[in-house]
Amino acid sequence: MVTVALDAMGGDYSPEEIIKGAFDALKKDKDINVILVGKKEVLEGKITEEYKDRCSAVYATEVITNEEAPVAAIRAKKDSSIVVGMNLVKEGKADGFVSAGSTGAVLVGGQLIVGRIKGILRPALAPLIPTEKGVSLLIDCGANVDARAEHLVQFARIGSLYMEKVIGIKNPRVGIVNIGAEEEKGNALVKETMPLLKECDDINFIGSVESREIPKGGADIIVCEAFVGNVILKLYEGLGSTLLGKIKDALMKNVFTKIGAMMIKSSLKETLKSFDASEYGGAPLLGLNGLVVKAHGNSKANEICNSILQCKSFKEEALSDIIREKMTKN
Amino acid sequence: MVTVALDAMGGDYSPEEIIKGAFDALKKDKDINVILVGKKEVLEGKITEEYKDRCSAVYATEVITNEEAPVAAIRAKKDSSIVVGMNLVKEGKADGFVSAGSTGAVLVGGQLIVGRIKGILRPALAPLIPTEKGVSLLIDCGANVDARAEHLVQFARIGSLYMEKVIGIKNPRVGIVNIGAEEEKGNALVKETMPLLKECDDINFIGSVESREIPKGGADIIVCEAFVGNVILKLYEGLGSTLLGKIKDALMKNVFTKIGAMMIKSSLKETLKSFDASEYGGAPLLGLNGLVVKAHGNSKANEICNSILQCKSFKEEALSDIIREKMTKN
Repeated sequence: MVTVALDAMGGDYSPEEIIKGAFDALKKDKDINVILVGKKEVLEGKITEEYKDRCSAVYATEVITNEEAPVAAIRAKKDSSIVVGMNLVKEGKADGFVSAGSTGAVLVGGQLIVGRIKGILRPALAPLIPTEKGVSLLIDCGANVDARAEHLVQFARIGSLYMEKVIGIKNPRVGIVNIGAEEEKGNALVKETMPLLKECDDINFIGSVESREIPKGGADIIVCEAFVGNVILKLYEGLGSTLLGKIKDALMKNVFTKIGAMMIKSSLKETLKSFDASEYGGAPLLGLNGLVVKAHGNSKANEICNSILQCKSFKEEALSDIIREKMTKN
Repeated sequence: MVTVALDAMGGDYSPEEIIKGAFDALKKDKDINVILVGKKEVLEGKITEEYKDRCSAVYATEVITNEEAPVAAIRAKKDSSIVVGMNLVKEGKADGFVSAGSTGAVLVGGQLIVGRIKGILRPALAPLIPTEKGVSLLIDCGANVDARAEHLVQFARIGSLYMEKVIGIKNPRVGIVNIGAEEEKGNALVKETMPLLKECDDINFIGSVESREIPKGGADIIVCEAFVGNVILKLYEGLGSTLLGKIKDALMKNVFTKIGAMMIKSSLKETLKSFDASEYGGAPLLGLNGLVVKAHGNSKANEICNSILQCKSFKEEALSDIIREKMTKN
């Protein structure tokens, strides 16, 4: 059994969609338990008879909002859903914690409460992004910008373990985001990191990846500093939604196009589903003594459900233990 | 009259599409002259009777390839199409130079041959990118990474002049690429640049722009360091092509979707045309004593034509003079 603590208070569609996501996960997988964390008045009476055996509630009187400064909020609001949920992981009462709440608070809480694995310099926020070939791991998209070369090397290592163990890609290809394929291209950080990655015999480093190759599936693990990762992630989302909006406009132009739209609708929907980030669950915060998953702020039940299911593979593969072991060796 | 020197040897589709682009521009605008620069054996006999009065050829015996190191190539190949074309600008025989050849060579040649405007610390490669609202200027996407705050401030200034004078956007909004809208977010460079941009009373600075806002038209001038700019530009192109490929697959799935596709085809094409980067011509290299435009390596006639037309607005608005004047004042 895997037990997942779920922040019922976080995200634009909480608590309804969050709770629905929990029930969907419980329905899909009988080996999952969920602990809903949130205000008593919000959760009381919400857990249906059907899931009563595998779903419980732990109350928290406070909520951390997106507007609050993360470090101060984590320190001050000891009874917030994020702090209470993370303490459940720390105390071993839950295997993982999922939240669609404040990214900053989740990142800070992960480090301060759940704690880094010994040897890990920085935990990394590593979302899966859809590509033509399936899915790639974008590491790091976190809040700690201006990384050093040694951080990027660790990202490459723990990202490789995640893709191999949790996602099931054998010998995953590691690329570093760069502005050209040639050896001499890059900024100071990339130039410093490149030879270090080449020396790693425990990863399958394939060199530079230009950003235009990312959607084509140019590498399985896309290593970059968090500022660049954040730019890539948000542009992926923004451009995708803009292009789909344009296509919708074109389909709704006149009666003729509307009929055409009906004829292609299901095929289009199916094709684009594979490019929907919510299908892959939230972004794990890798390198902690336990699993913390950050779901999008606008997550609906589907993403929450997938984030919970993701925790199961993580636990089954004992990824934290594997990373810990690796860090002791290197 | 505006005279544009055109590198007939550069780009994947040279010389045919390049020459066709020149003729298209000459046809569209009677106030344009084009000087084709390239090998004698390639150009001889190519200029048709129709355009003979406004189109001439200047021969260059060498070509700089994408594989060559830019600085060495510009220095060694004095009779290459890029060096010869840029010398035409330097000597005042042409108002602008357009090339779809090696980006590195165009950037280096621009600085070494055409030369920076006095006071300009770094010229910037600034492509126009399509957005929901029209078009934004992404500055800088050049080869000089690891910029300093004072460079970004100049980019904001010269980008504003370009958007106002050449593209015709009144009081254009300047945003700096950042990973959050909050004041405390950003890397060291952004944090250092932010207060400097706020102090500029000659630009309309609107603060941070997250990359997801770029396709929505979140700012008219998107200021960033070249590494980040390059990542944004190439992801824009890559993701666009991947999504359109997915949509094509969906439309070709079966007989039913193929009929639907026929019904929406023209509407879709029209809508997506506004999102086609080639409609906006190439990227100007701003801050030089003359106009240099870098067109995509895969440019066809349409982009070359638009790049030539772009030179006209640049000349008419005397942008180099305006930038020069501005630099003397500040």
